[in-house]
This record gives sequence, structure tokens and C-alpha cells, in this order.
Amino acid sequence: MSGLRIGVLVAVCAALCAAIVLPAARPAPQPAAAQASASLTNDPKLIEDLVYANRILYDQDVLDGFGHVSVRSDKDPSHFLMSRSMAPALVTSNDIMEYDRNGEPVDARGRISYLERYIHAAIYRVRPDVKAIVHSHSPEVIPFGVTGTILHPLYHMSAFLGAGAPIFDIREGAGATDMLVRNNAIGDALAKSLGSSYVLLMRGHGFVAVANSIPRVVLYSIYTPINARLQAEAMKLGAVDYLTPEEATKAAVATDAGVGRPWELWKSRIGKIE
Amino acid sequence: MSGLRIGVLVAVCAALCAAIVLPAARPAPQPAAAQASASLTNDPKLIEDLVYANRILYDQDVLDGFGHVSVRSDKDPSHFLMSRSMAPALVTSNDIMEYDRNGEPVDARGRISYLERYIHAAIYRVRPDVKAIVHSHSPEVIPFGVTGTILHPLYHMSAFLGAGAPIFDIREGAGATDMLVRNNAIGDALAKSLGSSYVLLMRGHGFVAVANSIPRVVLYSIYTPINARLQAEAMKLGAVDYLTPEEATKAAVATDAGVGRPWELWKSRIGKIE
Amino acid sequence: MSGLRIGVLVAVCAALCAAIVLPAARPAPQPAAAQASASLTNDPKLIEDLVYANRILYDQDVLDGFGHVSVRSDKDPSHFLMSRSMAPALVTSNDIMEYDRNGEPVDARGRISYLERYIHAAIYRVRPDVKAIVHSHSPEVIPFGVTGTILHPLYHMSAFLGAGAPIFDIREGAGATDMLVRNNAIGDALAKSLGSSYVLLMRGHGFVAVANSIPRVVLYSIYTPINARLQAEAMKLGAVDYLTPEEATKAAVATDAGVGRPWELWKSRIGKIE
Amino acid sequence: MSGLRIGVLVAVCAALCAAIVLPAARPAPQPAAAQASASLTNDPKLIEDLVYANRILYDQDVLDGFGHVSVRSDKDPSHFLMSRSMAPALVTSNDIMEYDRNGEPVDARGRISYLERYIHAAIYRVRPDVKAIVHSHSPEVIPFGVTGTILHPLYHMSAFLGAGAPIFDIREGAGATDMLVRNNAIGDALAKSLGSSYVLLMRGHGFVAVANSIPRVVLYSIYTPINARLQAEAMKLGAVDYLTPEEATKAAVATDAGVGRPWELWKSRIGKIE
Repeated sequence: MSGLRIGVLVAVCAALCAAIVLPAARPAPQPAAAQASASLTNDPKLIEDLVYANRILYDQDVLDGFGHVSVRSDKDPSHFLMSRSMAPALVTSNDIMEYDRNGEPVDARGRISYLERYIHAAIYRVRPDVKAIVHSHSPEVIPFGVTGTILHPLYHMSAFLGAGAPIFDIREGAGATDMLVRNNAIGDALAKSLGSSYVLLMRGHGFVAVANSIPRVVLYSIYTPINARLQAEAMKLGAVDYLTPEEATKAAVATDAGVGRPWELWKSRIGKIE
Repeated sequence: MSGLRIGVLVAVCAALCAAIVLPAARPAPQPAAAQASASLTNDPKLIEDLVYANRILYDQDVLDGFGHVSVRSDKDPSHFLMSRSMAPALVTSNDIMEYDRNGEPVDARGRISYLERYIHAAIYRVRPDVKAIVHSHSPEVIPFGVTGTILHPLYHMSAFLGAGAPIFDIREGAGATDMLVRNNAIGDALAKSLGSSYVLLMRGHGFVAVANSIPRVVLYSIYTPINARLQAEAMKLGAVDYLTPEEATKAAVATDAGVGRPWELWKSRIGKIE
Repeated sequence: MSGLRIGVLVAVCAALCAAIVLPAARPAPQPAAAQASASLTNDPKLIEDLVYANRILYDQDVLDGFGHVSVRSDKDPSHFLMSRSMAPALVTSNDIMEYDRNGEPVDARGRISYLERYIHAAIYRVRPDVKAIVHSHSPEVIPFGVTGTILHPLYHMSAFLGAGAPIFDIREGAGATDMLVRNNAIGDALAKSLGSSYVLLMRGHGFVAVANSIPRVVLYSIYTPINARLQAEAMKLGAVDYLTPEEATKAAVATDAGVGRPWELWKSRIGKIE
Repeated sequence: MSGLRIGVLVAVCAALCAAIVLPAARPAPQPAAAQASASLTNDPKLIEDLVYANRILYDQDVLDGFGHVSVRSDKDPSHFLMSRSMAPALVTSNDIMEYDRNGEPVDARGRISYLERYIHAAIYRVRPDVKAIVHSHSPEVIPFGVTGTILHPLYHMSAFLGAGAPIFDIREGAGATDMLVRNNAIGDALAKSLGSSYVLLMRGHGFVAVANSIPRVVLYSIYTPINARLQAEAMKLGAVDYLTPEEATKAAVATDAGVGRPWELWKSRIGKIE
């Protein structure tokens, strides 16, 4: 065999090795990261936090197939951002849509919106301090909403419950319904029930939590069901010494200040998205 | 050594590399998907949903080693489909069998049937609106069945409980038994107890859920134990404001309409089968 | 370069490829399966089931770092087999030891035995029908043992509780102790409390379950804590309709007969051992 | 082509194969184990146990994003070791810092300390028998602290509760606060409440556990919430027969002696760190 042919055989060998080994050694490259919705000009960090909030709340059993989380727009404070209607577990930055002050999508492009976006729109309209909102069907609070039992802060982690979580009964806003906040009128009634609190129970439905940042609304949403579970137990043991109003105010400041650590831990459990 | 031999050695090297690396780099191909039972002419999508229902109900702790789910045949509405007797966690399309109106297998071919298939047969006979049935031993409902406590809908997610879940006591149908629905006579007594409801508790046994589709019967089966758990808690807190009959009717329509999203989420947790 | 040198270079290339790729492609072979204890002549299937029982009971949260399971020897019915003292989660066939009728190891070879093996020895001595025993610290039964509340079968899955589970208070057997069954005298007092039942609660300690096979004692051990949890809930709802004696007897026969399916499912969750 | 060039090509082929396959076949070597903090001269085994304690307590749901564990220094018994302020789930040996008798870091180098280190400092000052301390927000104990209900040992596993766990109400030490032990004055009040016990509940906050070794303080911290959960259930069933003082003393000795087995099991669940 000629030297040329040998060289060709060797090169073929190397090429064959490369062709076989290379794809195995380097897994097929991940699909190119989906482009963030072209029309959104918001701070990408805000959108990333909103996506993480969706994933964390699912991971922490606060949201299941239902429920949603939103954030006030940093570009236009009368607008807010929320995922299109889908399971929070699967939300990516590509699913985030912008809504106007009435809860209507700015640029739907055929994407379906959450039916109960009016919960968010109504609260943003009357609470300028609120920057993020969660609506959850978390089971643990249901017994409180259906018995008119007020949730009070049992410990410093749920100090944000303050003087107690009010309860919204949709019958007061709209008579006999299917329990869903389907329009701004019901949304306004709900926001009125919320008042200046950070958590509102919804009879026969779930709860709403509001805060001045995404990490904080996620913390409130995780600790509200925990407080419900513990308060139910405590009430069976005897008279309960809740946090006093002064303790609740001070502890809420401390817990708010320390939200960075659990936020990073919750994010680390999710890992990289996309 | 001749050029020819060198070429052979190089080729052997390349082949050796390929023979070693290729199987390691590319996992052995999955076994060819099992053939769906040759005798079934039903819509493959129906069979696939039935298989997923088995897996989802196990994943969601509604079925353990016991319990079963069936669907009315789309080819012959007096017949129904159900897995052969085995743990729901492991059901594949190859395990699905067809049953006649009396709950007897059409083409057993030596495969064992679930002993309590008469629960399904009896209900399909008297409820033309029912297209899918689940029988579960889910623990959370047991305390209700053994104390004669009626399950009422606490929130919109369990609105399908309507005016409350009736309770079947097998002693009324068959005296002292081993608690199992072993024949059509007991099945008929059970179906009579169910009436027009979507959920029936079975004293000292578990529950049955029925619906007009597989995704809906799965949703009812997942939320029935949750409602039981929450109702037990609520009853300890005080007088309970259940959904009113009108709220339950309206909310059930809304929840039924929205079953697609949780169904897809539950399927995504299972992933590809086979 | 000479043909010889080319051949050598090619061979070196192949050898280098092999040396690099082979270890990566084939993970280091598993250590040769540990030899079953040379001195045991028991049916290997019996030993395998015993190992699986350890793993299953840990997987099902019946055993944690403590507790143990044994089986009567098929070679000498006055002897029994049990793991050396270690966490059940980690037991392999190599850890199984043989014990005589007094609970002393036949061939210790330096291996430490479970301190409370006398629970097993004492029961095997007086219950010829018993072939397998589990001792568990499962928390759910503790409230029953410390309040003298009898566990009764709530549903067919726990029918083996029969007329109710007796409670052993070690003070009656041995005065003030550290709660552990450290010798045959205490073991005899415990076996006397067990009587002809299949489950015995131990005040301030846990429970013991006995059966005529390993799969059945595992089933009894899994469903005893579940029954405890449900009975606690039921008793808060109202007067409880337990299984009648006749129902319990009949249902126990049916559940015993059907133990194969959950046993295979529990084993499949463990997978291959070693 | 010359023999030399062929040889070069073959060598290049082999080198190319090696360069491609080697990194894929052998995952990038772990970062060189982080150097233990250069300034710490403690027994590396002590530091390793402290790191494991952090990971185990998170794995066992005793610590979440908050709470901490410390160990008395083996070099200077007036000092103690604890991680810098971070989530216990992520602690490595590199995060361990040394604190003096007042709870101030010996060599901070810019690292932030846990705000509530004064809990640990104060207890080490007055309890020479204590070698390790855990502070946890574990929810299960909260109902007891807020209702003044004393935790008593229900079974041998929680015998360390002895005559009952005292409750510290921070209002007695410092009036209306944010519930946090922010200085040595509050720490001293807390240590006084602890007295000679091994567990102290903190109203509206959580609990503290102390022991003479890291494995034991981890065991106490895991079984305290379990005892709380069971005691709540038992109290609903009837009058509770807790361990008598003599039983508790004896059982605590036995459980302490046997801590090695669960400690190894808990460590095996964590696996290798770094």
C-alpha cells in the first residue's frame, strides 16, 4: 500500500474516532436558549426572578397546576408582568407577558392569559407599595377561610401576618359564583378586603400574598401555609400566645431584611432554567 | 510489515475503537415498544390516557399496590377497558383488557382480572353519563366512611362533591363479608348508593370516583382525599361554610373545563411510558 | 521509518485508545457479589426475602436506623435468622446471622447482635404459627401505646388487627427500665402480652408485628402505622364503625391471599441489591 | 508520505483520541478540596463532623435556610466553632469560623457571622458539660412554645427530654423585640431558662438542643420535633403515660450509647462532601 493510502487510512481512522467519540463525549448542545419575548423591555433580572418565583413556588408546594405570581413592571408602574396561562412548574422567560392596569394583555399574540389576572390588576391599582403578588390554592389555609378563623403570626417567620389575615368571601362581592375572580369588579372587592395587609384568605379558594419584592412575596407565600398548619395544632393545645403587634412589626423587619439567604437556597434547588 | 497489513491494523484499531465506544456512548436502544394488545380496536389515544391515568394516580398517591381505573369502550359502550390485575404503577398498554357489561373479560388469554371489576361494571350499567371510574383505597377518606361523616366541597377544586358524597356500607348489600365487591349483586348495591353523585365512600374500604372523561376522573380522585384531609381540619376549627349548592354547581363547571392544564402537568411528571 | 516501527506505532495507538476508552466505556466492574455467609445452609430465597424485607421496611418508613426483622429458620425451626446489628437500610445477605431458641448467635464470628433480639426469640418459642417478626419504632403508634388506646381495624387492609392490638407495658415485666427488651425474661412477658394477636404495641417504644411469612409481616408492619394515623383522625370525627369480628376475619384472609402484588411492587422500588 | 510523517499522524491520532476521550471519560477532577480555613488548628475530624451535622440537619428537615449548629473548640474550651452565616445545606469546612467566649469571631476576614450566635456563646459559658448546640426553627415545636405546653418524653428515643423541656419567652429577657437573640444579655436569659435541660423551646421562634457531642445533639434535634408531633396526637387521645423520670434517665443512657448507628446512616445519606 502506498504511503498516501496509509496516510488516508490513518486520517480516516482519526476521523472515524472523532466522529464516534466526539458526539458521545460532548452531549448534543442544549437548544439555543429561547429568546426572551422580543416586545418586553423590562430588566432581564426582574423577568428571571419572576420565572424563578414560579418554579420555586411549585417546588415548595405553594403552587400546583394552578395559581400564579406577578411583578409590577419596572418600565411602567401601572403595568405588571405575569406568565401566560400555564402550569407554573413549566414557566420560562419566553412565557412572560405584560398586562395593563386593567389586567388586559398588552401584546397577546394569541397567548392565553390567566383567567384570574384581575386579582393582580386590582391590587396593583390600589396598593402602590406592592411590587409582587402570589395567588395560591394552597390547601392548608382552606380550613381557616371556610370557618372564618383569622390567621395570626405564631412565630417570627410569619410576622408579616401582622394583626391577622383578613378573609374575602366572594359572595359579598358577587353573590353566587364559581368562586373565580373573573373581572375587575370582583377584583376590586377582593383588594378592598385585603386593605393594608400582606396576606388575604379567600373563602373556599385559597389565598393571596403581596409584598414589595419577588423574594419577599415568595417567602410570605411559603410561610403562610406553614403558619396555618401550626396554628391549627396550637389551637388544639390551648390558648395561643401569638406575636404581639410590636413583636410582629419588629420581627417582620428582620425577616424581610434576611430574605436573601432563603431566596438563594430556594433558587439553588431549582438550578439553571433553560 | 506490508502496507496492506498496516491498513488492516489501522482499520482494526478504528473498528476496535468503534466497537468499544459506540455502545457506551449510545445507550442500548430501548426495547421496541410493546405491541398494543392485538385484539383491541379502540382508539389508541384512549388506551394511552388509561395507561397514564394508572401511572398518575400512583404518582399522586391515590392508588398504591391496589385500586384500579377503567374507561368505557369507544367501540362498544356496553364494554369497558381496564388493566389486568397488577399494580397500577407498572401498567402498560399491553396490559389493557376489554370487559363486557357484566365485568367479564372478552379475551382473557390467561390474564387475571381485578377481583373488584364488578364496581366498574355495575356503575357503567346504570350511569350512561359515566365514561371513566376510579376505585381507590386512599387512607384520607377512611375516617369519613367509618364515622358516617359526609364529605362536602370545601373549595372550588372539589366542587364535584356537589351536595356531599354518599357512603356505601357493604353490610347493607351483602351482610358480613371480607369488604370486597366480588360480584355484580354487591356491585349493583354500590351503584345504587352512588346514585347521581361523582364520588362514593365505601365504609372500611376506600372510595369510588366517576366522571365523563379520564382526565376528570383523575382530578376528582386526587382532590377527594385532599378535601377529606382539609375538612377534618376545618371541622376542628369551627362551623364550616362549605360551597353552597349553587357555588358547587358553577365551580364544578369551571374546574371541569380547566382540567387540561393539570392533566398535562401530571403527565409530564410521568414522562414517556415504555 | 521501518514497517516494524509503523506497526509498533499503530499498535501503540490502538493500545492507547483502548487504555483510555475502555475504562471510561465500561465503569469499573462492581465488586464481586459478597459471598453469602458460608455457615448458613438456609434456602437462599429465604435469606433474599429477609434482606428485601429490611430494605422495604426502611423505604416505607417503618424502620429507620433502628428496628429489625427476622424469619424462622427453614432448617431448624427452633432457630431464626436476623441481620447483625446495623441499620436495616444497609443490610445485605452477608449480614444475616443465625440465632438459637434463646436468641444467642450460633456463629457470631465477632459480629454484634441486635440488643433486642429477645423479642424475636421469645415469640418464636411460644408461637409455632409465626414465621417472621418485625420490631419497629414507628412514631404513629406511639400515641396509642402511651394512652392505652387499642388499635382496631378501620379497613380491610388492616384486618389483621383482628379484635384489637394489645399493649405491652414493660413496667409489668420488669419495673423501671430503659424501655429495652434486654433479656429473655422481658421477652417472655412481651410474648405473653402478644397472646394470639398479630400486632402488639409497646408503651413508650413502638410495636411488634408477627405473621406466617415475610411478605405478610411486612404488609402488617406497613399498615399498622397507617391504621393508627387514620384511627386517630376517625376518633375525632365521631363514633367509629370498625370492621366487625367477622368482617375482620374474612378480610384478613383476602388481604393475606393478595400479598404477592404489593410485595412485588415494594421489591421493585428497591431494585437489585448488591 | 514518509514513515516519520506517518508516525506523526498516528501519534496525532492517538493524541486526538486521548484529548477528546479523556476529559469526557474522566469527569473534570473535582476542584482541589478547599483548604480548611488556614487559621483553624482544630481536629479536622471535629470540623468534618460539624459540616456533616449541618448537612444532616437540613436533610432531616430540622434546619431550613435558617438555624445553626456549633461545637465547642477542642483547642480552647472557651471558644466554639460554627459556620459563617449561610444556609446549612451548603456549609463546607471552608466556612467554619472560630468564636470567642462572647460569641465574637476570632478571625472574621470579612465573613459575616450568624446574628444569633449569642445563643451558643451564652450556653457554652454556663454549661461546661455541653460540647455541641443546635438552634432550629423547626415548625413542630412552635405550637408548644406558644401555648406554654411542656414537651415530655413519649418514648425512649426522646428520653433526653427528661423532666420536660422548659420554654423561654424572650419578653422576660428583653421586653418587646423582633424575637431574635441579638446580644449576650438575651443569650444569658435564654441560658438561664435552659438550666440543666438538653432542650429548650423558644416561644414564637423554635428550639435549642444541647449535648456532649455532635452526633448526640443531632439526634436530640431530630427527635424533639418528632416527640412534639406525637405528643400533640397523644394528648388528643387521652391521658398520657410519659416515660417516668427513672425510665427517662435509663433510656437516655441507652439511646446516647447507641447514637453511632443512626449517625452513620444519616451521614451515608449525605455521602461525600466536596
